[in-house]
Amino acid sequence: MHQEIVNEGLNLHVSVDCVVFGFEFGKLNVLLLERKMVFQGKEYSDLKLPGDLVKINEDLDTAAARVLFELTGLENIYLRQYAAIGTPDRLKRQARDMEWLRQIGHPEETVVTVCYYSLINIDQEKIQKFILQDNARWHPVSQVKDLAFDHMEILDDALKSLRNELRFNPIGFELLPLKFTLTQLQKLYEIILGITLDKRNFRKKVSNIPYVISINEKEKGVSHKPAQYYTFSKKVYEKTRRTSLDFFV
Amino acid sequence: MHQEIVNEGLNLHVSVDCVVFGFEFGKLNVLLLERKMVFQGKEYSDLKLPGDLVKINEDLDTAAARVLFELTGLENIYLRQYAAIGTPDRLKRQARDMEWLRQIGHPEETVVTVCYYSLINIDQEKIQKFILQDNARWHPVSQVKDLAFDHMEILDDALKSLRNELRFNPIGFELLPLKFTLTQLQKLYEIILGITLDKRNFRKKVSNIPYVISINEKEKGVSHKPAQYYTFSKKVYEKTRRTSLDFFV
Repeated sequence: MHQEIVNEGLNLHVSVDCVVFGFEFGKLNVLLLERKMVFQGKEYSDLKLPGDLVKINEDLDTAAARVLFELTGLENIYLRQYAAIGTPDRLKRQARDMEWLRQIGHPEETVVTVCYYSLINIDQEKIQKFILQDNARWHPVSQVKDLAFDHMEILDDALKSLRNELRFNPIGFELLPLKFTLTQLQKLYEIILGITLDKRNFRKKVSNIPYVISINEKEKGVSHKPAQYYTFSKKVYEKTRRTSLDFFV
Repeated sequence: MHQEIVNEGLNLHVSVDCVVFGFEFGKLNVLLLERKMVFQGKEYSDLKLPGDLVKINEDLDTAAARVLFELTGLENIYLRQYAAIGTPDRLKRQARDMEWLRQIGHPEETVVTVCYYSLINIDQEKIQKFILQDNARWHPVSQVKDLAFDHMEILDDALKSLRNELRFNPIGFELLPLKFTLTQLQKLYEIILGITLDKRNFRKKVSNIPYVISINEKEKGVSHKPAQYYTFSKKVYEKTRRTSLDFFV
């Protein structure tokens, strides 16, 4: 194995790409960078995911955190590594991508990219504001149809991974206030999963979850019938997780 | 982002490492290579995971499949990518690892490794035999305590990923005969999860799974009370999966 290939020197580039999902009530967004270039004699711009080459002696997770920090100023955001992609032609499928690499002097060899996603709340009422770098903007995920390189596939895979994680882990609660209504909870799942859920089935399912707990408080000052508030108990969650065997759910 | 770091040339090495789990009734094994070297003037040998540098213009998945094929002659084995690791000092933590790299002329720069695992049946009654390369052997996972480089961490992570996948996906059925008893099914879960399960709870749980179906047949020629045979219905599994919403199970 290793013995057979020696002294070949540095053999590939490694980058990280970050799919940063921004949740707000109403829609799911993704953070994209505008890429400006001259292509076939004309000004041209399109969109790409944030990413960068990994530096020598830099850990992969550190590189991903650096990319996110440089774009948003946010630190300590949980970034989940979900794939590494090294398809040999991945940067060279479109003429404009090859031209762009040439213009910025990017190496033309294959770049293996390690992909991360994160999910943050960008609802301005709920979290502190943060400043995006000039060429970075939030775009509704449902409206993104074309990206540079293979970034559309990377985004699609990130969305699949996020949705899968949401089904099996209680990551959604971090996006909700401490006390929330079942309507808010259902809306959150609908937005991230991109589907409409049946209200009755949803509530039946939630009623079987021991760590979503109703508290002795209702909505105030609303014109409709005040809804019950619920809260997520991490303590109960961890206790019930340890003792259950959720094989092939 | 990419614009800032240009013309740095090839910046890192990329390798794949394969954690090949071999299931047999009785225990879970892992495929390891013996590494022989002269260390501090003495013959020395220890164990490592199979792996190799990724070749120029080789896809990551292709590289992993190649490593597995060269070791076992097996093709078309499902390999699941579960992590990429690029900790800068990962190959240099132990003196014997650095000495080995020097002896084989391996580059000393950081190697980002993309990790794969697979699960195959090595019960000789059930599958065709295959020939292992000379220095490759199956070792019971529970007895592996020390490996070269950071391979012990890579193995531990693979085991966690495998166990997690087993809980949420019906991967275990590929290791069983078409018709199996609940005792066999329980044993399989116990071996891979490394725990003892309560028989009554296990059967109760299984009885709620629509795609584990009892068939009109029992064990024959056994000295104990003949057990009912069951089968896994992929059709029912896929149908029920599509319609259920298993969020935060």
